[in-house]
Amino acid sequence: MDPLFEPRTVAIVGASRDRKKLGNVILHNFMRGKFKGKVFPVNPNATSILGLKCYPSVEKIPGTVDQAVIVVPAAVVPAVLKDCGAKKVKAAVIITSGFSEVGAVELENEVRRLIQKYDIKTIGTNCIGIFDPSTGVDTLFLPPARLNRPGAGSIGFITQSGAVGSAAMDLAGRQGLGFSKFVSYGNATGLDETDLLEMLGRDPETKVILLYVEGVRRGQEFMATARRVAAKKPVIVLKAGRTEAGARAAASHTGSLAGSGQVFDAVIRQTNMIPAHSIAELFDYARVFSTNKVPKGKRVLIITNGGGAGVLTADAVVQSGLELAVPSERTVAELAKRVPSYAVLHNPLDLVGDADAARYEAALRLAAQDPGVDSLVVIVLYQTASLEPTINDVVVRAARASKKPLVAVSIGGQYVERQRLAVEKAGVPTFEEPERAVRALARLTEYHLRRPAP
Amino acid sequence: MDPLFEPRTVAIVGASRDRKKLGNVILHNFMRGKFKGKVFPVNPNATSILGLKCYPSVEKIPGTVDQAVIVVPAAVVPAVLKDCGAKKVKAAVIITSGFSEVGAVELENEVRRLIQKYDIKTIGTNCIGIFDPSTGVDTLFLPPARLNRPGAGSIGFITQSGAVGSAAMDLAGRQGLGFSKFVSYGNATGLDETDLLEMLGRDPETKVILLYVEGVRRGQEFMATARRVAAKKPVIVLKAGRTEAGARAAASHTGSLAGSGQVFDAVIRQTNMIPAHSIAELFDYARVFSTNKVPKGKRVLIITNGGGAGVLTADAVVQSGLELAVPSERTVAELAKRVPSYAVLHNPLDLVGDADAARYEAALRLAAQDPGVDSLVVIVLYQTASLEPTINDVVVRAARASKKPLVAVSIGGQYVERQRLAVEKAGVPTFEEPERAVRALARLTEYHLRRPAP
Repeated sequence: MDPLFEPRTVAIVGASRDRKKLGNVILHNFMRGKFKGKVFPVNPNATSILGLKCYPSVEKIPGTVDQAVIVVPAAVVPAVLKDCGAKKVKAAVIITSGFSEVGAVELENEVRRLIQKYDIKTIGTNCIGIFDPSTGVDTLFLPPARLNRPGAGSIGFITQSGAVGSAAMDLAGRQGLGFSKFVSYGNATGLDETDLLEMLGRDPETKVILLYVEGVRRGQEFMATARRVAAKKPVIVLKAGRTEAGARAAASHTGSLAGSGQVFDAVIRQTNMIPAHSIAELFDYARVFSTNKVPKGKRVLIITNGGGAGVLTADAVVQSGLELAVPSERTVAELAKRVPSYAVLHNPLDLVGDADAARYEAALRLAAQDPGVDSLVVIVLYQTASLEPTINDVVVRAARASKKPLVAVSIGGQYVERQRLAVEKAGVPTFEEPERAVRALARLTEYHLRRPAP
Repeated sequence: MDPLFEPRTVAIVGASRDRKKLGNVILHNFMRGKFKGKVFPVNPNATSILGLKCYPSVEKIPGTVDQAVIVVPAAVVPAVLKDCGAKKVKAAVIITSGFSEVGAVELENEVRRLIQKYDIKTIGTNCIGIFDPSTGVDTLFLPPARLNRPGAGSIGFITQSGAVGSAAMDLAGRQGLGFSKFVSYGNATGLDETDLLEMLGRDPETKVILLYVEGVRRGQEFMATARRVAAKKPVIVLKAGRTEAGARAAASHTGSLAGSGQVFDAVIRQTNMIPAHSIAELFDYARVFSTNKVPKGKRVLIITNGGGAGVLTADAVVQSGLELAVPSERTVAELAKRVPSYAVLHNPLDLVGDADAARYEAALRLAAQDPGVDSLVVIVLYQTASLEPTINDVVVRAARASKKPLVAVSIGGQYVERQRLAVEKAGVPTFEEPERAVRALARLTEYHLRRPAP
């Protein structure tokens, strides 16, 4: 049992009857969601909150308490930790802000000493804490009507910034992505990025790790851990505060020393983590890495029904450091029997504007068998009248049947967006921009080509 | 009267009763849409199509014919042009493909000679032609159920690729953008990119011109025209076929010599056009340029309620070549009276997680008056419980009242997306990614700082 992600008993210290208060939203989260354990509101000024008996202190709760979620003012946090220590609480999530990020360094140091003294596994301070879609642990104090909770999946997300992290998860959930664990650790008074990376590295539910950091505390330990974890599973990193101006902003945000972008780039290269330069890239890469397909090399085949889209994609392939595959003679000869004479049997393979699903099917089958092709970009411009609705099955089946990574690109309005989402939900990474599709494929390829043999 | 965009009489040569044929879809477009003139189907093998009397040739149509839309097989196009010549047709849109892009250079030369001989203002060959939302001229042969037709607006879009162009317009329409004119010119057997740039440069309905090109035919004329037009209104260019591989793909697509990306970059710089590197950038920039706000300098103020988002945006500002504004002493002093002590009164201006609309209102009003601020990035993380729904009015009013460019950023799921779209529809450019917002602001700033004094 992990007391942070699978507690059986949780105390909400600072629970409140006021619906606008964080202590109300969080208590609600544990009562409304998937959480199967017991939850105890703690507040000396109430006898009952949301129909639950309220306790004046953690110590007064009967039985063991696995986890305390702390949402009291900063000055009160030390007293609450002593209360937790007396009760032998195993884990804590300290939501409260007002520590080193506003200059209250001594108060934060006191909190750190108490955490260590009582050996409490702690997330925070100055964070929004934990969301685990399978166990229902949910300390996110943002109302579900405004911040959607995504479903369970294989992405673990570690974020220094609670607001950016949760907004990004909200965005990703809208696109159908599922999460194993979300952790916002704020000032890292307790566990820091290195601890959490280690934890998610060992977590069997987490297949891909996303990391948003402004600064890293223990450089050497972080590098060693990152190298070890990245050899097992992909670790995609967005480093904020890359520039001097950004680093200054980070200092007043989570009180962390951001360190230069260039130094961090070197760390990323040496550890074989995957660099993302925006929230969009973080999830683009997560979707492609989640498919578990391993490219054997850099040679990409582009299949399209629109010449211009093929041109843009060919540019992107070359500019991203990948290569254009040369289809084998067999592929070309077999395809020539199945497509009209005006199709273009090079790379991009242009099935032209009147392509139907059968033409795609033939091209995808031959590409899967072609030893000169390592991965595929399939562009479907759905607007043409000749494309039957079965095109989606063709693409999804091809992606599932082949060991080669496949990304799909489509550009358009409502009709196209519906088709794209259907393909995405069937497990194929889809993109509205060829450049983003190719960039994700490039990161996947680099990661696997650099990865040490197991 | 422009016979291409405002014809009173149009012949559809190659009209068809078969709903799958292009000649049927196009005839439908003119009958169903906004087109107020007369439309005549031409097909020697039919007496009536879609309830309209069908003519065996253009010459047999009574009265004048302003425009012919030609969708017959390539080999028949010369005969149709002679028919149009005899009838003194003023303009033609030749949809038909199968010319130089598949090696039939001589046939295309014959078409070119006939166009010149009869002085027919021609779009095409190998294109999808024209869409004009105000007059209802619509030769796009993609069914409206699959390709949405956007509303009228101020964006003129010239595209060499019909598929990319129309898919991109479809995408932009979904986001609420309006168009003045859309022209896909394909092989440019008739008018080319230079002619069309000249035309939209003179068009009073077009405030911003978008251009997708693979290759440019008349380099010197193009440069001279681009320089003249770009001095009057922004011309945003996406050049495909930048790499050798992309250029080869372009050759089999529209038969054009693509020319290197570097040479084209120099052309863009010298003419003060605005370079876009993806379809997404094309429309990001179009939205920001459409607001008609002119930044006086490079100094950007970031206002946020999420620290991490501020850090990412500060990085993006510096990396894009813009600068972080330093808020004036007056701004800081006045703000200090209106926000709590834990707000961060630097740049990024962090109104922090419990910010309400009033805090944004004060910050926006002071920023508008601050002489040290040239433009604004306003980040709204809508997920917090403290932000009232009035926040959108506050942002929209501030954007309208100020002469300084303002872009809004929000990141999130369904709830956030609804808010973002509401702001976008009120005329404020909105973004889901800080990096894209800042990049658009950077292009706007560069354009205006380089623009010669009128």
